[in-house]
Amino acid sequence: MEYLLRPRSVVIVGASQKRGAIGNSAVRNFIDLDFKGNVYCVNPRYQEIEGFPCFPSVVEVPGEIDVAIIAVPVAFVENAIRECAEKKVSYVVIFSAGFAEMGDEGKQKQEEIKKICKDHDIRVIGPNTMGITNVIDKINLSFTNKGALKWLDGSIGLVSQSGATGHTILNKGEDEKLGFAYMITTGNQLNTTTLDVMEFLLEDEKTDVIAAYMEAVPSGGQLKDIGAKALLNRKPIVVYKSGRSEAGQKAALSHTASLTGSSKSFELVANKYGLVSVDTIEEIIDALKAFNGKKYPKGNRVATVVISGATGIMIADNLAQYNQDLVPLTDQTKNRLREVVADYLPVDNPVDIASTLMMNPAIYKHCIQTLAEAEEVDSLIIHLPLGKSNGGLNFAKDVLDVAKTTDKPIIVLTTGSEEEISPVREYLNENKVPAFSNVVSATKALDYLLSYEKICAERDRINTVSADENELKFYLPNEATVTEPEVKQILKDSNIPVPVGIVGKNIEDLLNKTAGLHYPLVAKIVSPEITHKSDVGGVVLPIKNEEELIQAYQSITENVSKHVPNAKIEGILVEELVEGPFLETIVGVNRDLVFGPIIMCGLGGVYVELLKDVSQRLLPITEKDALEMVKELKSYPLFDGFRNGATYDVPALAKVLADISNLAFSLGEGWSEIEINPLIVREEGKGVVALDGLITLAEREKAIVEQ
Amino acid sequence: MEYLLRPRSVVIVGASQKRGAIGNSAVRNFIDLDFKGNVYCVNPRYQEIEGFPCFPSVVEVPGEIDVAIIAVPVAFVENAIRECAEKKVSYVVIFSAGFAEMGDEGKQKQEEIKKICKDHDIRVIGPNTMGITNVIDKINLSFTNKGALKWLDGSIGLVSQSGATGHTILNKGEDEKLGFAYMITTGNQLNTTTLDVMEFLLEDEKTDVIAAYMEAVPSGGQLKDIGAKALLNRKPIVVYKSGRSEAGQKAALSHTASLTGSSKSFELVANKYGLVSVDTIEEIIDALKAFNGKKYPKGNRVATVVISGATGIMIADNLAQYNQDLVPLTDQTKNRLREVVADYLPVDNPVDIASTLMMNPAIYKHCIQTLAEAEEVDSLIIHLPLGKSNGGLNFAKDVLDVAKTTDKPIIVLTTGSEEEISPVREYLNENKVPAFSNVVSATKALDYLLSYEKICAERDRINTVSADENELKFYLPNEATVTEPEVKQILKDSNIPVPVGIVGKNIEDLLNKTAGLHYPLVAKIVSPEITHKSDVGGVVLPIKNEEELIQAYQSITENVSKHVPNAKIEGILVEELVEGPFLETIVGVNRDLVFGPIIMCGLGGVYVELLKDVSQRLLPITEKDALEMVKELKSYPLFDGFRNGATYDVPALAKVLADISNLAFSLGEGWSEIEINPLIVREEGKGVVALDGLITLAEREKAIVEQ
Repeated sequence: MEYLLRPRSVVIVGASQKRGAIGNSAVRNFIDLDFKGNVYCVNPRYQEIEGFPCFPSVVEVPGEIDVAIIAVPVAFVENAIRECAEKKVSYVVIFSAGFAEMGDEGKQKQEEIKKICKDHDIRVIGPNTMGITNVIDKINLSFTNKGALKWLDGSIGLVSQSGATGHTILNKGEDEKLGFAYMITTGNQLNTTTLDVMEFLLEDEKTDVIAAYMEAVPSGGQLKDIGAKALLNRKPIVVYKSGRSEAGQKAALSHTASLTGSSKSFELVANKYGLVSVDTIEEIIDALKAFNGKKYPKGNRVATVVISGATGIMIADNLAQYNQDLVPLTDQTKNRLREVVADYLPVDNPVDIASTLMMNPAIYKHCIQTLAEAEEVDSLIIHLPLGKSNGGLNFAKDVLDVAKTTDKPIIVLTTGSEEEISPVREYLNENKVPAFSNVVSATKALDYLLSYEKICAERDRINTVSADENELKFYLPNEATVTEPEVKQILKDSNIPVPVGIVGKNIEDLLNKTAGLHYPLVAKIVSPEITHKSDVGGVVLPIKNEEELIQAYQSITENVSKHVPNAKIEGILVEELVEGPFLETIVGVNRDLVFGPIIMCGLGGVYVELLKDVSQRLLPITEKDALEMVKELKSYPLFDGFRNGATYDVPALAKVLADISNLAFSLGEGWSEIEINPLIVREEGKGVVALDGLITLAEREKAIVEQ
Repeated sequence: MEYLLRPRSVVIVGASQKRGAIGNSAVRNFIDLDFKGNVYCVNPRYQEIEGFPCFPSVVEVPGEIDVAIIAVPVAFVENAIRECAEKKVSYVVIFSAGFAEMGDEGKQKQEEIKKICKDHDIRVIGPNTMGITNVIDKINLSFTNKGALKWLDGSIGLVSQSGATGHTILNKGEDEKLGFAYMITTGNQLNTTTLDVMEFLLEDEKTDVIAAYMEAVPSGGQLKDIGAKALLNRKPIVVYKSGRSEAGQKAALSHTASLTGSSKSFELVANKYGLVSVDTIEEIIDALKAFNGKKYPKGNRVATVVISGATGIMIADNLAQYNQDLVPLTDQTKNRLREVVADYLPVDNPVDIASTLMMNPAIYKHCIQTLAEAEEVDSLIIHLPLGKSNGGLNFAKDVLDVAKTTDKPIIVLTTGSEEEISPVREYLNENKVPAFSNVVSATKALDYLLSYEKICAERDRINTVSADENELKFYLPNEATVTEPEVKQILKDSNIPVPVGIVGKNIEDLLNKTAGLHYPLVAKIVSPEITHKSDVGGVVLPIKNEEELIQAYQSITENVSKHVPNAKIEGILVEELVEGPFLETIVGVNRDLVFGPIIMCGLGGVYVELLKDVSQRLLPITEKDALEMVKELKSYPLFDGFRNGATYDVPALAKVLADISNLAFSLGEGWSEIEINPLIVREEGKGVVALDGLITLAEREKAIVEQ
């Protein structure tokens, strides 16, 4: 995208002499920012616009064109694109609206343009975009005018599906003296999506941190690849994905005509790859401040210096929400603090120096330096209630001096009237010491950093799971459903224990084959056309002896021929009954339409269905992930000797989860759901048994949907 | 407090000529703000300070003194108070620190002063306070200097335990053009607490809304009285109570040396009386903006006008969190909108007018007016992304014009760079149209208003519960514990069903008395000295006939005499066993040390103990409250035919909760805990049975604590 971001020559199609018009603003941006390259205008009505030469069509522009900006009404866009194709322009930015966001007719227009661009290899930003702002090089391919003042360049790469939201983020970031590299707004994403831009920013050397606003995730797989790569390169990505609620999804659908994907699944992707998923524009700014500091805590032990006891309480309350600890200070640290802290003040964490810093400003720096050097401290939150008119900037300089001597993150909390404290906060942020004016943001900033550091520390785990989608070990049948014996054979081949059992075609066959089985038994009908076996009287249990087995056979065959007379019957499955004590669990894999397979587990009965006590992960997972999944369940204590109860075989359960993860890939793409329900978990060391299993075929589901 | 807030004459004890000193700032505040009353200084070293006469002691000041400000070091405070007492000063503001916040020695000093003040009827603000700022009358009894500019008076009464936090709230409020009446900071609260100030503000005619920051709640009863009164008078109280986490409570303990009380119990008080409980200083400001508008929604049907589709999605997402609905618009409303909305834009809620308002500003006002007048709309959120330099103030004026014509709350969301939008936001807030610059605050504001309105609508409920604490119907025994038959008699007398049963002294007595009972039965030991009956072999069940009853008697007496040979035995309780189907529930009342009795209910087994699925209310409650409690349980569907299961007698359960509420008051103050566990809930219409009950005596618990 080099020549898109740093074009040597541009043409504005639909340039205008009328001040305030989009086609004029776009031109004036090049004057205001003293653009060094060639600027050409296209408009049949003029020969010159704002001092730049104007031509009747793109084709007539002399010399090469790196980027064409299209600012004509929707009806003229197709022609402009054709001209660009003829002129061999590689990059086009289309401001014009009236495409996919306007319903079916607009969608069709967009598709037509898309085809031309594909045929001529044209990369498009938009349509319906506010364009690109290259902050580093002061190039504004946009119809908004940022003015000449606020161009603080930095290393944040910003991409936004919404132009207005992109500008809000940029504005708020600049308010806080955050430096940006670029802002790219993708609009209708004809052939360049937010993810495509993220891929570019990942490779771009001038970008250290990526910020993204998105409504839809165009490709789950692409997002995962980006996540994995960003994690390996330690390039933090802060994402605000809106459209989380049903109402929000409805609003998004009418806004961008695209499905937003399940927000739960998005969170699973974010958790796995360390994407910093936030819920508001303000949190984007907070997170960017934090990551801009480029310092990460090694653990959750926080120390804080406050000028007001109340602020100490608020910091403590908020840290507790993010599992951060106000660490008890060692005697050594306390002694060093005591060198300056007044006798009548206790030395504790929060270190409350009250207003003593007004009498002796050196107290402040000494305390901060001491905590920064204390071995028991991983990070610091420093309260600074003084503004520009009472020494706030000097104290901020003290913090900065200490920050230069340590790798530990130092977060500053400024309090007071905005007029007084904003210069102090801006000074700190400009110097990459994250400063906030509210306790929630200050404490959350530490959480962003620590959570990211933790996922980075485990990033190798992502590579250790082999999930070669091509290695198909199993072939799914062409029948309507996969029968229970077929599912169980697949589970068995995946090292997942199933009950001892046989399939018999008739009663003689059954009696022969069950000779080696231990009673009590269970008998179930086997038919690719019967999914709910119990509903048609196709299951009998317990069967205590041969006589009962014969009765069961008769009862099942009679029931089935009565309820589903034409069903294709493959036989009767007879298995040994599994006896307690055990816990019943449910393990399943579903496919998210955007993000791919998601595994879940939970306890059976009310736990999954009523209490929604379910643990989920994006596939693939390792046994370690699986163990974390089980321990995350609210009902986990029931596995672990709750109320002097038994301890159950959690490692065996975790192994099944990991095996199912592998199975999901070995089965290829032909399934939509895999479920073991119940998966019996026996007492510690005694393993698990998959009592029943279900594999739903993708085709079949599709068929149902199409009906 | 009239003469405290509007003194006719003041004396500053410890006045100083040294600029920057506390004793000087306090004096200069009277000059800067052009105080009309008499100002006297006390300092033996000077005859005059900043133009005011100075005396060696308070006693020597001529004329009457309404308020004495004490700004001397801690060692001299007692003497100053004695002088004030002699001079018959009624109000004293003590800036000096070094009292209760400094540990035992300081506490003792504070107690000594407290005694003097009590003896001479002196009302004290502080010590360790930043004093009082009367914004309306420009009187600043404080050592901070607000300058002469920001004195926007209004009707918010602010009280803060922490001086620094009080000033932060005042500063942030003034940044947003909120007008205050007074700020009173209570510091160590020697004899004037935050609650005392709230009582004053409740009565004060110039105060419409109360804002409070508190770390401790000095009296739960007083807070409840304030809440009830505020609700009846419709004077909203916004409270931030810090010290919610364990770490925060620890920090509070070392800061103010006072227990913070359980934050869960505080929330119950807030919920009951409509106190607006917030978690941050920023939320105080947000809530004050909302209540400053004095308009309340009648329901949760929200309409919104946006200039950017993304903003619409974000608003939808956030409204969903607070159970507010983006209401579908009627055809009538849509037709009226269509009069101005461009053909190529869909008319829906969010009403997205994109940037068309730039071409025709009248579109904006027309849409807002239409939605304000639409019957299906209860409240509006209006997006305003334009700042001071591109017409933002004109559009704000349009909003204001519409706001004047409607009782529905109109909330404005401004977006853009702070420099651009803050004048617009401030203009709106100054004119009482709540304006916010982030989606969370804008949507939460509606939640504050709607939640408050809902509680107000039901405020009569608070008076319908009779909880006459003097009407003692029961007398608790003087034994160590209340025995099960005694508890059951009390329950029975409270209309709570218990099993049919008898108490027998010996086997003959038992056989006689059980003649009328239906087997199966259960037998339990009765002894005021045995609480855990099963642990000592004191319970036998089921008992199917006389023979087994005799065996049970023998077994219980043997077991008890073996395990607790010296226990005083009052007999054997024999009851009919209650047979299923039923659900086991737990009902209990506990006393919070600060807030008084709290009732809870939940399902037995794992639900209460493991899953913490518990519903709680402050006592007293009505049956309607009780019904809400039960329906709040996550496990409630189990009462209501979950998975084709039975429906259980929830009304009977609710009645027991209300009966227990009454019982808790009829029992007086002698108990610390009342519990029914299990309370059997049978199927619909079949009632409940209290299988076991426990009343723990307060004295006994105290004895255990004292050990």
